Amino acid sequence: MELLVVGSIALDTVVTPISSFDNALGGSTTYISLAASYFCNKVNIVGVVGDDFPEEHIKLLKEHKGNLDGLQIVKGGKTFRWGGKYHDDLNDRDTLFTELNVFEFFNPIIPESYKNNKYVMLGNIDPDLQMNVLNQLENKFVICDSMNLWMNIKLESLLNVIKKVDVLIINDSEAKQLSKNNNLIKAAEIIQNMGCKYLIIKKGEHGALLFGNEKVFSAPALPIKEVFDPTGAGDTFAGGFAGYLSQTDDISFENMKKAVIYGSTLASFNVEKASTKGIENLTKQQIEDRYNKFKELAGF
Amino acid sequence: MELLVVGSIALDTVVTPISSFDNALGGSTTYISLAASYFCNKVNIVGVVGDDFPEEHIKLLKEHKGNLDGLQIVKGGKTFRWGGKYHDDLNDRDTLFTELNVFEFFNPIIPESYKNNKYVMLGNIDPDLQMNVLNQLENKFVICDSMNLWMNIKLESLLNVIKKVDVLIINDSEAKQLSKNNNLIKAAEIIQNMGCKYLIIKKGEHGALLFGNEKVFSAPALPIKEVFDPTGAGDTFAGGFAGYLSQTDDISFENMKKAVIYGSTLASFNVEKASTKGIENLTKQQIEDRYNKFKELAGF
Repeated sequence: MELLVVGSIALDTVVTPISSFDNALGGSTTYISLAASYFCNKVNIVGVVGDDFPEEHIKLLKEHKGNLDGLQIVKGGKTFRWGGKYHDDLNDRDTLFTELNVFEFFNPIIPESYKNNKYVMLGNIDPDLQMNVLNQLENKFVICDSMNLWMNIKLESLLNVIKKVDVLIINDSEAKQLSKNNNLIKAAEIIQNMGCKYLIIKKGEHGALLFGNEKVFSAPALPIKEVFDPTGAGDTFAGGFAGYLSQTDDISFENMKKAVIYGSTLASFNVEKASTKGIENLTKQQIEDRYNKFKELAGF
Repeated sequence: MELLVVGSIALDTVVTPISSFDNALGGSTTYISLAASYFCNKVNIVGVVGDDFPEEHIKLLKEHKGNLDGLQIVKGGKTFRWGGKYHDDLNDRDTLFTELNVFEFFNPIIPESYKNNKYVMLGNIDPDLQMNVLNQLENKFVICDSMNLWMNIKLESLLNVIKKVDVLIINDSEAKQLSKNNNLIKAAEIIQNMGCKYLIIKKGEHGALLFGNEKVFSAPALPIKEVFDPTGAGDTFAGGFAGYLSQTDDISFENMKKAVIYGSTLASFNVEKASTKGIENLTKQQIEDRYNKFKELAGF
């Protein structure tokens, strides 16, 4: 199956305790698309860049099953830029700068050729943009990533989006903030009552929880001693999840469990290298081997 | 098989946000013994109480396969008392008081009849007492619980005990403190290099990790919306783990994984009721049903 992806495309400046780099390929759409490409037949991208966006990145996306019919390239415009600096434990980061540039006036337009896609992945962007996308579509299975920023400044918009979403993906602190409850199990119940059918709570080094159909699945995290660059791990997780789900076209809880593990698998590759390098050249075998490591890790 | 258990026996005062009670049965030996009783043929207890220790508690331990040949009852002595108050989220607590009483001069003496026990569970007590016990034994499989208090005030003694231990059980913040490393995977490596063959790191609501034989097992935590009383959850985990391991007499990594889940199973019952009430009247079927919930929760 094909997957429709809407989100940001960025050039990132990243500073970690052991490395730093400028103008690296980034953005939620980018990570999602690359991760999903290992499962989908085609990744139908909607996004915006300036004409400063390097041709090599366009090529990379195309080589990874990216269909760029929905990519707007703004003449004379500058691509969205983000800079972040990670703390010593890599669990926290400070935003160094956010230059929205062409993203400030982004009006996502879904090409007609994308509209038969059954699965839609909304990357982490302004919930008003996410709603704009949903208003152009009907009867889709919608997977949506979000973050605390939108809970702080656009809560009402986010709540409206959540009502239309099938799978919401957020992290543990965001789940607590959104639900106003510190018990993750209660928080999950509250958030599901906001309207999403399924909820994934990412817990970093503690794995992830999938809630839905009155069931819970607890996915482990791969034991990792050294994270090189955590940027995009959440997007990559979402991309692997959505890619596997759309390819198998099976939304049973059992299959969603597998999708969560494939998402975790792709994310574990992503953090091993800078920018998108960790998910640019994977083989099916590498992915299956890593998936099986999760099986060993959690099986009893 | 029989399990040899050494630790504390106490009368607890507990205050939680929703309940409080005085003089409730507590102590590491107590929780360990009750939990282990669901697996072992006999639980050989070494401990000390005053003659104020209620007969009903003696009866309870005996009814749960407790052999009290190693229990010292000090005439005119007062039983060890501990009081704790839990914070709102139940993850933290303040010690209200600690009255060592007869425990202050506790000299654990292992009865001859216990000395053929292959499996030994050292409950969380002063590492000097744990070493005293180890010096009376030879060629045992030793499981040892400890806590941050001993890392703060008796680190050298604790390090000497760890050298002689097969399985060390601590929680995540203790693992970070002991290893001086904030990455749990690195922390586990450092602690295993201190001498224990296996290491279990308990992570509360995030489950537990088992390390050994260059393998890792990630056990999930049961989703719990309401914890009634977390007191003794760690001891109960250790008791279920040690009880299952000694009964099956199989220290393969695969069997230890199961033991971790049985420990988690017993701990999940324990937090549902005050004091030891949650683990006093379980059936084999209840335990198997709960164990299977862990399987559902983690299986994919």
